[in-house]
Amino acid sequence: MTTDAVNVQAALDSITEVWQPHRLVSVNDSDVKVAKLLGEFVWHAHPESDELFLVVSGSLTLQLRDRDVVLAPNDIFVVPKGVEHCPLAVEETAVIMVELQGTVNTGDAGGDRTVDLRELPD
Amino acid sequence: MTTDAVNVQAALDSITEVWQPHRLVSVNDSDVKVAKLLGEFVWHAHPESDELFLVVSGSLTLQLRDRDVVLAPNDIFVVPKGVEHCPLAVEETAVIMVELQGTVNTGDAGGDRTVDLRELPD
Repeated sequence: MTTDAVNVQAALDSITEVWQPHRLVSVNDSDVKVAKLLGEFVWHAHPESDELFLVVSGSLTLQLRDRDVVLAPNDIFVVPKGVEHCPLAVEETAVIMVELQGTVNTGDAGGDRTVDLRELPD
Repeated sequence: MTTDAVNVQAALDSITEVWQPHRLVSVNDSDVKVAKLLGEFVWHAHPESDELFLVVSGSLTLQLRDRDVVLAPNDIFVVPKGVEHCPLAVEETAVIMVELQGTVNTGDAGGDRTVDLRELPD
């Protein structure tokens, strides 16, 4: 359990690679993560977990099969569990994510974009 | 389930009363809420839920029985379930909160500061 406050911007500043989620804190059965995004990810779904995106800076397009949802800073969107999506960031974009613990970044798609959740440096 | 993006600042701008949590979105079994805070709340604990605070603007002191945790904008802190706390905002402060659905603002303390979770206007 986290015992000290964590600063979102300091956490983001410590991240050097895009598409690498880092755990900020856990709350109940969920993880709150930060990541930097740039370019297009892969189409995938999370069969077990909704996935919340909150844009801190930049711009994120969540491509869904039937439409695109474009998020500016301070915008929140929740991709329901099981819904296919493909994130696209045309500029470097910083996000906060909330999802159930154990949720894998590439969901049911797998492949070489799959990474382990990282912890922030102390 | 939320079908459109929600803007955190627009939601906060629509809130006219302090200590009135409004639901931004739900994600899995949790609610993500926004509230404006000013002054001191009441000592209470949430026996069933951790409670995440993310300060958007202002300054929040989370008084715990053994110490104070002071949060500036972009700071996150999670009060573990069952831990007594008393929020204090010496200036008007805007926060995002994450906690399990059904969590009551005054927790086990009850009393006249207890309010129902509100929905944002359309």
